[in-house]
Amino acid sequence: MPVLPVRGLGLRLGTEGQESAGIVTSDGESSQAFKVHKGMGLINHVFNADSLKKLYVSNLGIGHTRYSTSGISELQNCQPFVVETLHGKIAVAHNGELTNAVRLRRKLMRHGVGLSTSSDSELITQLLAFTPPLENDDTADWVARIKNLMNETPTSYSLLIMHKDIIYAVRDPYGNRPLCIGRLIPVGDMNGKGKDNSETEGWVVSSESCSFLSIGAEYYREVLPGEIVKISRYDVQTLDVVPRPEGDPSAFCIFEYVYFARPDSIFEGQMVYSVRKRCGQQLAIEAPVEADLVSTVPESATPAALGYAQKCGLPYVEVLCKNRYVGRTFIQPNMRLRQLGVAKKFGVLSDNFKGKRVVIIDDSIVRGNTISPIIKLLRESGAKEVHIRVASPPIRFPCYMGINIPTKEELIANRPEFHDLANYIGADSVVYLSVEGLVSSVQESIKARQENENSLKSHKFRVGKIGHCTACLTGEYPVELEW
Amino acid sequence: MPVLPVRGLGLRLGTEGQESAGIVTSDGESSQAFKVHKGMGLINHVFNADSLKKLYVSNLGIGHTRYSTSGISELQNCQPFVVETLHGKIAVAHNGELTNAVRLRRKLMRHGVGLSTSSDSELITQLLAFTPPLENDDTADWVARIKNLMNETPTSYSLLIMHKDIIYAVRDPYGNRPLCIGRLIPVGDMNGKGKDNSETEGWVVSSESCSFLSIGAEYYREVLPGEIVKISRYDVQTLDVVPRPEGDPSAFCIFEYVYFARPDSIFEGQMVYSVRKRCGQQLAIEAPVEADLVSTVPESATPAALGYAQKCGLPYVEVLCKNRYVGRTFIQPNMRLRQLGVAKKFGVLSDNFKGKRVVIIDDSIVRGNTISPIIKLLRESGAKEVHIRVASPPIRFPCYMGINIPTKEELIANRPEFHDLANYIGADSVVYLSVEGLVSSVQESIKARQENENSLKSHKFRVGKIGHCTACLTGEYPVELEW
Amino acid sequence: MPVLPVRGLGLRLGTEGQESAGIVTSDGESSQAFKVHKGMGLINHVFNADSLKKLYVSNLGIGHTRYSTSGISELQNCQPFVVETLHGKIAVAHNGELTNAVRLRRKLMRHGVGLSTSSDSELITQLLAFTPPLENDDTADWVARIKNLMNETPTSYSLLIMHKDIIYAVRDPYGNRPLCIGRLIPVGDMNGKGKDNSETEGWVVSSESCSFLSIGAEYYREVLPGEIVKISRYDVQTLDVVPRPEGDPSAFCIFEYVYFARPDSIFEGQMVYSVRKRCGQQLAIEAPVEADLVSTVPESATPAALGYAQKCGLPYVEVLCKNRYVGRTFIQPNMRLRQLGVAKKFGVLSDNFKGKRVVIIDDSIVRGNTISPIIKLLRESGAKEVHIRVASPPIRFPCYMGINIPTKEELIANRPEFHDLANYIGADSVVYLSVEGLVSSVQESIKARQENENSLKSHKFRVGKIGHCTACLTGEYPVELEW
Amino acid sequence: MPVLPVRGLGLRLGTEGQESAGIVTSDGESSQAFKVHKGMGLINHVFNADSLKKLYVSNLGIGHTRYSTSGISELQNCQPFVVETLHGKIAVAHNGELTNAVRLRRKLMRHGVGLSTSSDSELITQLLAFTPPLENDDTADWVARIKNLMNETPTSYSLLIMHKDIIYAVRDPYGNRPLCIGRLIPVGDMNGKGKDNSETEGWVVSSESCSFLSIGAEYYREVLPGEIVKISRYDVQTLDVVPRPEGDPSAFCIFEYVYFARPDSIFEGQMVYSVRKRCGQQLAIEAPVEADLVSTVPESATPAALGYAQKCGLPYVEVLCKNRYVGRTFIQPNMRLRQLGVAKKFGVLSDNFKGKRVVIIDDSIVRGNTISPIIKLLRESGAKEVHIRVASPPIRFPCYMGINIPTKEELIANRPEFHDLANYIGADSVVYLSVEGLVSSVQESIKARQENENSLKSHKFRVGKIGHCTACLTGEYPVELEW
Repeated sequence: MPVLPVRGLGLRLGTEGQESAGIVTSDGESSQAFKVHKGMGLINHVFNADSLKKLYVSNLGIGHTRYSTSGISELQNCQPFVVETLHGKIAVAHNGELTNAVRLRRKLMRHGVGLSTSSDSELITQLLAFTPPLENDDTADWVARIKNLMNETPTSYSLLIMHKDIIYAVRDPYGNRPLCIGRLIPVGDMNGKGKDNSETEGWVVSSESCSFLSIGAEYYREVLPGEIVKISRYDVQTLDVVPRPEGDPSAFCIFEYVYFARPDSIFEGQMVYSVRKRCGQQLAIEAPVEADLVSTVPESATPAALGYAQKCGLPYVEVLCKNRYVGRTFIQPNMRLRQLGVAKKFGVLSDNFKGKRVVIIDDSIVRGNTISPIIKLLRESGAKEVHIRVASPPIRFPCYMGINIPTKEELIANRPEFHDLANYIGADSVVYLSVEGLVSSVQESIKARQENENSLKSHKFRVGKIGHCTACLTGEYPVELEW
Repeated sequence: MPVLPVRGLGLRLGTEGQESAGIVTSDGESSQAFKVHKGMGLINHVFNADSLKKLYVSNLGIGHTRYSTSGISELQNCQPFVVETLHGKIAVAHNGELTNAVRLRRKLMRHGVGLSTSSDSELITQLLAFTPPLENDDTADWVARIKNLMNETPTSYSLLIMHKDIIYAVRDPYGNRPLCIGRLIPVGDMNGKGKDNSETEGWVVSSESCSFLSIGAEYYREVLPGEIVKISRYDVQTLDVVPRPEGDPSAFCIFEYVYFARPDSIFEGQMVYSVRKRCGQQLAIEAPVEADLVSTVPESATPAALGYAQKCGLPYVEVLCKNRYVGRTFIQPNMRLRQLGVAKKFGVLSDNFKGKRVVIIDDSIVRGNTISPIIKLLRESGAKEVHIRVASPPIRFPCYMGINIPTKEELIANRPEFHDLANYIGADSVVYLSVEGLVSSVQESIKARQENENSLKSHKFRVGKIGHCTACLTGEYPVELEW
Repeated sequence: MPVLPVRGLGLRLGTEGQESAGIVTSDGESSQAFKVHKGMGLINHVFNADSLKKLYVSNLGIGHTRYSTSGISELQNCQPFVVETLHGKIAVAHNGELTNAVRLRRKLMRHGVGLSTSSDSELITQLLAFTPPLENDDTADWVARIKNLMNETPTSYSLLIMHKDIIYAVRDPYGNRPLCIGRLIPVGDMNGKGKDNSETEGWVVSSESCSFLSIGAEYYREVLPGEIVKISRYDVQTLDVVPRPEGDPSAFCIFEYVYFARPDSIFEGQMVYSVRKRCGQQLAIEAPVEADLVSTVPESATPAALGYAQKCGLPYVEVLCKNRYVGRTFIQPNMRLRQLGVAKKFGVLSDNFKGKRVVIIDDSIVRGNTISPIIKLLRESGAKEVHIRVASPPIRFPCYMGINIPTKEELIANRPEFHDLANYIGADSVVYLSVEGLVSSVQESIKARQENENSLKSHKFRVGKIGHCTACLTGEYPVELEW
Repeated sequence: MPVLPVRGLGLRLGTEGQESAGIVTSDGESSQAFKVHKGMGLINHVFNADSLKKLYVSNLGIGHTRYSTSGISELQNCQPFVVETLHGKIAVAHNGELTNAVRLRRKLMRHGVGLSTSSDSELITQLLAFTPPLENDDTADWVARIKNLMNETPTSYSLLIMHKDIIYAVRDPYGNRPLCIGRLIPVGDMNGKGKDNSETEGWVVSSESCSFLSIGAEYYREVLPGEIVKISRYDVQTLDVVPRPEGDPSAFCIFEYVYFARPDSIFEGQMVYSVRKRCGQQLAIEAPVEADLVSTVPESATPAALGYAQKCGLPYVEVLCKNRYVGRTFIQPNMRLRQLGVAKKFGVLSDNFKGKRVVIIDDSIVRGNTISPIIKLLRESGAKEVHIRVASPPIRFPCYMGINIPTKEELIANRPEFHDLANYIGADSVVYLSVEGLVSSVQESIKARQENENSLKSHKFRVGKIGHCTACLTGEYPVELEW
């Protein structure tokens, strides 16, 4: 068998990366030879042909895209973070937010480490560099350092740590943030002819499996909660699985299913699209309505709308068409931009619904100011009734584990208007999916699939009791929060 | 009634404008006071807050976005074109392509006019400046000049001509390119409260009515084939309708319905979306297939797919999800970019179609290199059968009237592979809509609607026999081509 | 003798080109194959490696840099101007300003030509395209057209006209704007070894001879007032010299010597530096002063200061050092920027003049707001006395021939403060050079040199009586101005 | 007396800053409220109106411009460096290069600090954060920390350290890099009227005093070798002067006088211009020559040339004029660019020296490839003889204290050609200034001035024996180098 190169990649894809992006590559031999390119803005602005050419001398690297959670929006906070340690350089890419960051910062500074950024990633990087005893230890034991780090902080983090010719892929014991591994398919196969399919061209790691297709890779498996995976030139190897405290269920972020992830991503053995469609079906059971047609605000709620329509037996019809050039509403910086954005975002297909009773399926109502002008637009264009069905429960609580949720005061579910929401947004009726309905839409399929799924059977470690983080919906955080 | 300002606008919306954009504004008093801003690239690159601020001193202006047809891609070819004549400055925005441009260029140069660009727009502008007799005529008669121009060249052009405080909106006698008028709704109405609805805030003109919504205007009516409309501070007034040669039908570009226009645009009294849906229904009649589900390549063929699915009684299911950040395939510059584009353009929703027989509705197959990798992708992801149904007839001939169609050699319908197309693209079957099916999908609704439609009844001029330009499908051009 | 390529170049060098720049190249065969690159801003911004690579396929081209005189600052006014005529494309680069432009514009428009810019260059280009009789003349006679143009407009223009494989270099009969020819030295010679020196590698034309050195060319000769030079692949050939009206002297712009040209440029057989030094010597004769040292405002007045110091027998000492990063004061757009500019422009070498009586030689005082803060700076840094001597006469009148002189109201010589100028600018004394002193500094050397100078003897045409345009100093314009 | 704001500024001015620039400002109250803006490239590219507006909320800040010495050219190496410590944030700007950096890096990493850059500035910053004992010390003693730092590393550094409302200005005990303090003059005084002159508006600190003028400040005094100055809202106060090892003289970089500093800067009580002029005079004594005129390569050697000419009694004449748009030769990145640069850099004033014997004074000959084409140019333009006199000794050794000197192999003085240098560069003769001549030109004036100079008398601390670092000329480094 030829020795094939190992590749690593950790880009969080999608419009979420609206703040910064970075890539670090290694020549796989010297720990001094990292090449770094980072910058503020969208990936396409940060990377161009020139910057990529400089990076592409290597077949080993990690990347990162970021949208602000904690840490001010500054170039210095761009990941991956690179530091030189006594045992060579390491590069670290981190998705998540540490629940005990304040205490860890103070601990490090008390030991005399000056911290040059406000980001958790620098924290993680310095903790990896710092972990004692160092004076007499000239052989680095990175796994011990990673496990020490995991003992210092329970959640939330998915990590890629690059050192020389190794990439360590790590998920926190609660599995709060996603991380999965893909297998590069030999190019010959892509063209339908060529090399033996049994060979592996290399490995890639990503927050979302949807990124694999566009680089010619296929989904291999998830990194498990607590798992430390070593990706080398030769193989993918589980080094250890750090367990949760006795009795704690896993806590994968349910918001990834509802809103964040791309529909073709796979988490816990199921396609996000399928979960969303089931949410729509569940919603049809929980909140049916007398109407002529089911539609959606394009395009993230389309799977839920198709599920709802199918379950109700109503026709699925398009009522709006999307205007190109407008980014995702959730990410945009302030209220004024958000409102202008809605106004310019859609065209109206009025012939399709004139005089009809319309059910609009939305994936979530966060602030209420996106749906309101749309309802108005539909009524002005001839809709007889407009009923809103939301394929997720109301968001009520802040997230401290990596999702940038609006402040409590901005959330419509915490405002007085919520008590008469239909009236406030101008709908004939509005009903949210229940938390139970969401959780069952997510979990029942996992339980069913778990037995059949090869990717989960293929390793020997227990994942433990399965749960999901619903903190933003229920206020029940998976670990105690520290300040 | 208060004297309301007149506004003019002639931007061709959408990604088509990938080459250049420009706006000229007038203060409405002096013919010397045009303000011009033009540039290469997408609108968003050409115009920023600063450039717009400089333009927005005025309430009268015309704009243009362009994608290359004839004329090299140069800044000098950017529209609108402004020239100073003996009777003041005029600014001209032009959509279309003159079928007798070569003869007209030579005629002008023979009269001693040096032409500084290769664009038809300069030609039109100089013809308007030139039209004799000028020596003894110090009163400009712009309508006479416009009619002379229309006698010199039969098609294809939609024009906006700005002079002092007037904008002339002109469509060629064949009506080959679209042009429609919108009415600005007073801002009070937009907020649901306020001014008397009967008042008009001003007028806008555009190639596509879909642009009206996002600027707070509503569709008023089309400019008719051959019509010269004068838009002034006070009203919209038809000055004349230049007739076609006896017996010639109108020749609106059928490709606008099939591919070019946004689905919410209205042409000839009907929504583009509805035409596309009817094409899908007609296709289901012409070419049914045994299958489990109907889907589409997102997202321009969705209306046809929904029409097809409804007519067949098959479920409509999504099989691909779109990757953001990628422009329209048709426009991109060369084959290599187009192929890379396809590879990165979609995510696969494999759970939705694994083991199923899939019908994919596409809006057109131009070169065949877009659909082929998609079919492969679907098969590799588990589709049992993949049948292609195309909601338009094969394109076989070049367009000389403003649409940038690939060369004859590049068109799949002119290549040997076309005889065994299913095999070439890797489909189980492939069937196109017939020309008759397309024409009837477009026209029967016009005929039915024509009687009821206020916007067409409201003026006194005959449009004559209705036809459509199907030259790219049939090779039958509406006028004889001159070289 | 091998057939060597002919090259043409017409860039006006220096910071003057602060508005736009352009280059047009020809492949020398087809008149359709011009390549054009133009843009707003400094040359370095307009041209980069990419744009030059596109142009450098050819060995024939003309270029232009521009700072605004007449014509608004717009991309459309960028030169060279290219138009297609019945006899092929021509490209025109123009330095100067037509004194009868308004009449010529009206004449062209009356013939039905729409003018798309406000620049004289388009005017010239259209006049060349237009010149009748054209109907029956399919053989272009460009020399006849150029002579017709010269009969239409007496001054001021230096022109490069490119058509197929020929460049015509033309100076108006008054010779108001400079134009000179250089000979490309074979590269072998540049390296000190190699080809036979007698061969010519090609020809270049420029407003200023100083540009020749940096491209490996040497000064050959001036284009004479009224001369039409044809530069072909084989030689440089005088086609004709259009004479001035009987008795009119030539009228080369004296401001080029005083301020505009680079000191190493050669006009009328003499180096600009030498003229400036003689002005300083003449000034020492006209306006001596009791002082300890002579200095200057770096760096354009240094030759005059050295001349003054030498004539007076006083030491030349530096009192200010230049701060890099600041452009030429004269060109900057408004008063506020000009004042800020002065503040940041210099460092003070106070040890050199503390307690001393200083004579500062300046090349011109246009508005008075540059010298005033400098005098203050010198006094605050310890100068005992500050005397100003200006090596040119006061500017009092507008220029209508291509120099962007401030408005009459801005010129210090037209303001009340001029009567007590020393007091106004804070100097102990201030004296200007007389007009007679300037003219004699310029002309006596020409007369002396004229006999010895090969470059003037080498052609057979009379230049006529030698004079200089001193209109901005005296109000005596070389031709009657038309409006 | 009103409480006046304190301002700090540490920009190294001039074209040297070709790599990066940064500013950090503090609101003077919270140590968390630093505002940072840094970037690659020239100051003008890094800072624009927007970035400065964000910084200018404050009246306390430090800045930095950098050209590469050690440390790769990366954004991360941009100064000032900011870290958060247990006692709040500090920002550090550093000029110089630590002679024991490698040992210090290893020491820090051995203590578990991960280093994220290769720059000495991060090293200094982490050493300030780290200095033990920290566990039990909640009151920061920054002076103790700074003194500890100075004990760890003897040279070379000038530092600005900002913490809350204090800026510490520090020079290493050898005084290798410059640092001086300026006093902001109330704006009223700048306009010649207004406030009481005795008041102080604030303080500024800079590498070069020449920067003070352009921001309305005046030279106050130097920071002494080893001095720690505390600059607060109220005053400038010496906290301590850390002494050198017994017997060691100070070691200010002599290259600052010869080449680096702007001529109007003041070091050790003397103007750089005056030192350069004395070098020229000394050179005339050491190496006179029979000639007709003395000139220089503009413009850095002009003071030496004027000194030489004056001492010899020969006329000073200009032979070259500078082409704008070209940066300093020394800084440019590679040999090819440097040669092209010379070719385009000058115009020739041939009339001034045709047939004459010319002495050219240059400030230094580093590689020999700048002067050689100039000599050739002068000969080709008619110079009868060209003698080169260099106003500094040959550079033979690398600098490890902050100056980017070419490699030993590139230095002309270390190459075989040096033995016959006149022949190699094409001169009739070439003589360098002796090391003794340079040192005496620099030092005798200091000794003479020292008694009279207020700025040096005004503080109570001894500076010790005065010396200068001539390591690049003699190989005698002021401290032992560590690796």
